Amino acid sequence: MDTNDFRNGLLDAGVLVDAGSPGLYHRSGDYESVVRALESYVSEAGRDDSPVRLFIAPVINLETLEGSGYVGSFPNLIGTINSFDGDMKKLGEFRGRVDSGGEWSELMSHTDVALSSAACHSVYPMYRGVTLPIEGLRFEVLANCFRHEPSMDPARLQSFRLHEFVYLGDPDGALEFRERWIATARRLLGELGLVTDLVPANDPFFGRGAQMMVEGQLEKELKFEITASISSDTPGAIGSGNYHEDHFGLPYSMSTHDGHVAHSACFGFGLDRIALALYYAHGLRLEEWPAEVRERLGFDELLS
Amino acid sequence: MDTNDFRNGLLDAGVLVDAGSPGLYHRSGDYESVVRALESYVSEAGRDDSPVRLFIAPVINLETLEGSGYVGSFPNLIGTINSFDGDMKKLGEFRGRVDSGGEWSELMSHTDVALSSAACHSVYPMYRGVTLPIEGLRFEVLANCFRHEPSMDPARLQSFRLHEFVYLGDPDGALEFRERWIATARRLLGELGLVTDLVPANDPFFGRGAQMMVEGQLEKELKFEITASISSDTPGAIGSGNYHEDHFGLPYSMSTHDGHVAHSACFGFGLDRIALALYYAHGLRLEEWPAEVRERLGFDELLS
Repeated sequence: MDTNDFRNGLLDAGVLVDAGSPGLYHRSGDYESVVRALESYVSEAGRDDSPVRLFIAPVINLETLEGSGYVGSFPNLIGTINSFDGDMKKLGEFRGRVDSGGEWSELMSHTDVALSSAACHSVYPMYRGVTLPIEGLRFEVLANCFRHEPSMDPARLQSFRLHEFVYLGDPDGALEFRERWIATARRLLGELGLVTDLVPANDPFFGRGAQMMVEGQLEKELKFEITASISSDTPGAIGSGNYHEDHFGLPYSMSTHDGHVAHSACFGFGLDRIALALYYAHGLRLEEWPAEVRERLGFDELLS
Repeated sequence: MDTNDFRNGLLDAGVLVDAGSPGLYHRSGDYESVVRALESYVSEAGRDDSPVRLFIAPVINLETLEGSGYVGSFPNLIGTINSFDGDMKKLGEFRGRVDSGGEWSELMSHTDVALSSAACHSVYPMYRGVTLPIEGLRFEVLANCFRHEPSMDPARLQSFRLHEFVYLGDPDGALEFRERWIATARRLLGELGLVTDLVPANDPFFGRGAQMMVEGQLEKELKFEITASISSDTPGAIGSGNYHEDHFGLPYSMSTHDGHVAHSACFGFGLDRIALALYYAHGLRLEEWPAEVRERLGFDELLS
């Protein structure tokens, strides 16, 4: 099946509803049940790794976004939020443009808030200046994320859910955490009937210097993606394991118990992409999904 | 208890985590369980009213926001989204400012997307130009919404969940729908141990003309709020029933079966405010909430 056929199938079956802009969809109750079932399924597997479980605010402050390093590296993907903050004179002009169908966006002012790009970005500022325990710290974080990359491929949404497990500690702990989660995730996803692969990967760095960043990331093996068919037979990433070295430990002054700069790692499940991959693999009607997949996701209970 | 004490209690107990900006919080697993239990509780009561159940995209297109009438009336509350769309020269300047801690927001460009202000706004564009059946149409819609009103009062969040029931049809049907949902909501909320009141209300219109809009809304009894103690003994709105007259029917050219301009109504549950009201009424520890409230919310099952 090609991406267009799959997209049309999702829309015709009412799984997703076109929200009028590429990569924006309203979601049916069934689709949302799949995403929430995946959340529970993943949480259950991470129970030992999640003494701290947080649902991250979909809107974060600019300092957090800046601290993530995302602003400079992926300025084309981030979303900052504007609102109107003018005086009565400017309001008159604003309303005139709104009423006449004119361009009013440029009269908005930037605020101090932005959309989350990833769940883990909000964890690090909470531990600014902290000396970590010898065993490190572990977190489970979920977030509604935004990335501005309009596309007709349903595998590339502008607004989507990430479910991440995060480690802060020493380099060995970070690498061990990442490797363990990559293995766990492949098992979990395989048990849902998805055929996955594991590939070295890089982030989509932007503009001048991007090639060098990509090469560095690949050479140091900082990022691996778990891929599967999401919206066509061409595989895409449904999860990724990342070793950040001191990318967050340094700016946030986090130290290991023995006084070194903390390292960190995360594993992120792309909940919406996994949900789509399940629809792609098992069909558009939940009641026709394989019994063992339905059972693992706790569906017969959920849909009763 | 005053608002500050309540806020500090929520933060100390880890129910909410300060996300670094007024009105932005990360949410504990327990808090999220309450919000989801409320969703199910409300959905169950609206089962007959929800042939169409949709989870609205948190990010919508500008046309939908414009069509809602929110842009002109509440420009101070809406959030439009900016991203970087410049050439390599502008990128150089952008990164220079990011690296030096300078003001980079003003180099962002506006996109064609914005944050949802209310769930129902996304319903109307789907029925543009439609002639409605004699019994009207009913919808259940949930959305992550944003309103830019930074506040230290946890009852006023910048990012929050609305759970709405919407009717499109004739004026009598719209009024009947609203009255019925107001009664249902007061019963549902009362059965959770909340002491509620019903008060005529108005939207927070902005700037010149606001007073006239407020007076018109009050005189025509277009809006009623269900109030309760949320974060202090001073009651605030936890739900609202709205009769829109032809506010949406006219711009979207929706007609009744007999050729008149369609009217509409909605009832919205403020899920986060209801969750907070429950914490305020029953305490910060879910396991100490009254047994009948826990049972109605299906908690003993959820938390097992």
